[in-house]
Amino acid sequence: MADLPATFADIIAAKQRISKYLHKTPVFTSSTADELSGKQLFFKADSLQKTGSFKARGALNAILAAKERNPSLSGIVTHSSGNHGQAVAWASRCVGLPSFVVVPKTAAANKKAAIQAYGAHLIECEPNPAARSETCERLRQEKQLEFIPPYDHPDVIAGQGTAALELLDEVNDLDAILVPTSGGGLISGIAIAAKFIRPSIKVFAVSPKGKMLEDCLRSGERLWPEPSQYLNTIADGIQLQSVGHVTFPILLQLAEKEVFEMSDDEIIQGMRFVFQRMKLVIEAAAGASAAAALSEKMRSMDSSLRKVGVILCGGNTDIDRLPW
Amino acid sequence: MADLPATFADIIAAKQRISKYLHKTPVFTSSTADELSGKQLFFKADSLQKTGSFKARGALNAILAAKERNPSLSGIVTHSSGNHGQAVAWASRCVGLPSFVVVPKTAAANKKAAIQAYGAHLIECEPNPAARSETCERLRQEKQLEFIPPYDHPDVIAGQGTAALELLDEVNDLDAILVPTSGGGLISGIAIAAKFIRPSIKVFAVSPKGKMLEDCLRSGERLWPEPSQYLNTIADGIQLQSVGHVTFPILLQLAEKEVFEMSDDEIIQGMRFVFQRMKLVIEAAAGASAAAALSEKMRSMDSSLRKVGVILCGGNTDIDRLPW
Repeated sequence: MADLPATFADIIAAKQRISKYLHKTPVFTSSTADELSGKQLFFKADSLQKTGSFKARGALNAILAAKERNPSLSGIVTHSSGNHGQAVAWASRCVGLPSFVVVPKTAAANKKAAIQAYGAHLIECEPNPAARSETCERLRQEKQLEFIPPYDHPDVIAGQGTAALELLDEVNDLDAILVPTSGGGLISGIAIAAKFIRPSIKVFAVSPKGKMLEDCLRSGERLWPEPSQYLNTIADGIQLQSVGHVTFPILLQLAEKEVFEMSDDEIIQGMRFVFQRMKLVIEAAAGASAAAALSEKMRSMDSSLRKVGVILCGGNTDIDRLPW
Repeated sequence: MADLPATFADIIAAKQRISKYLHKTPVFTSSTADELSGKQLFFKADSLQKTGSFKARGALNAILAAKERNPSLSGIVTHSSGNHGQAVAWASRCVGLPSFVVVPKTAAANKKAAIQAYGAHLIECEPNPAARSETCERLRQEKQLEFIPPYDHPDVIAGQGTAALELLDEVNDLDAILVPTSGGGLISGIAIAAKFIRPSIKVFAVSPKGKMLEDCLRSGERLWPEPSQYLNTIADGIQLQSVGHVTFPILLQLAEKEVFEMSDDEIIQGMRFVFQRMKLVIEAAAGASAAAALSEKMRSMDSSLRKVGVILCGGNTDIDRLPW
């Protein structure tokens, strides 16, 4: 795996860099879930991570690594109105750097407030990809900032991989891991770590309907329309259709071709199950992986696949507007 | 403390009896909660315990102890439509004994279903205390069952105390613990364990408004109307006004006289905080202790009181009818 943009050694280095700032998130089991799935399920609750999602891992690793390379680094810039924006704001504050988070001016007020609450400068732009990129680039140059992208970056990927180190540290004989997938940073990091520790493990992507990832993985080609589309899904954390240009080759090499595409109804049922039976507040993207674990597709998989890790990637949902 | 109905040794014995069936529940921190309270808060999440509440601890200990005393025990009976009913049903199944749970026929259908889902025989009675006691007593005699009361029993109290062993095992220098209190089984067990391990620790009861517990503790007398009333509160897990006849002397000896009485508005805010910021599904009774931790009363307490344990006692709330 020497040709991968991030290696197992990078993930170990990330763990050493970030672990004093972050939680080692707990792994939960549920006998009801096991009965329903016919498998032994292990839920990695990154919903309980700092900032409420796994994104804190990658953002913090990338920012610390950038500062190691350039100790006089003057600040951080990124674009995201979601979990990555919060994570960059939080991680920059940890490190003592100013951060600038570019969001479309149409973003929800509560998301903007969450980013500002972590101490970031909020920069509004027109709600289109070109304005977003231009604003980021202008800030980067003007203020000599480091740009931290949401997934397509080796340090971000390495940071996300630390979730798999923790999960396999707790359950070392997993047969598979289910990972909610949008741009692919989380599943890339997890696949690099997990396949190194346990080459027989299967790493499955979970997505909303319409992802096209299975076709792309089987054909080895990027069949997605460019620029990337947003899927029409309740799971706003995983609504990007295509995975990144850095992450796609990693998935081609390490992920299973078979993808768990879940409908909104299934995602809501997965969320409900985790709220009701496991007593955890999760966002819809995490509901998707719970739904995949409880799906008929999982139940009907080869019986040699017994122990399955389920990544509950985040908990940032609007509790005033739960989707049931 | 030799005259207490349950001792520290009983709690250690309880731990040995029950721990292989139960979770060691995690302890969470929240920098936001610490900022708001001016204290260092440690949230013990028994919402994540088997059956969704601490009640599994006491019920299982009492049933295992009863079986040790009488190996030919033929079954268990109790009355409760709430967490204790589910806990007795679950614990009886663990031990391999049939259980009979008496509930008022007016109890909510979802609560009855939850008890039956754990394999108990559900026995309906008229919705009044006399019918409940008579039904329990008739079943007990007819079927030679052991009656496991919800709080006023040394083995139940000893089981609940295991929560404090775990909490102090993780944070050994706590200055205080906040405990949601209804009949008083949980706070009795916690006080016995915590004061033995750390005599300087302060154990505070948390309740809805109207509990009268502070007056009773200060006067040393049971000032409550008999039979016990139900408080008008959203926190249905802690709606009993008076504590028990076994638990009251324990509280007189070991608990602080000062009681945190919380309004429904405060309880709802406490619940919301834990859902939104800590990503945990909790019931209103647990919201009460979060509210107490975040209250002005806590903030204004002696600054020598720094590290505070907060018992999140349960997570059994109706996620279709959250109170906001």
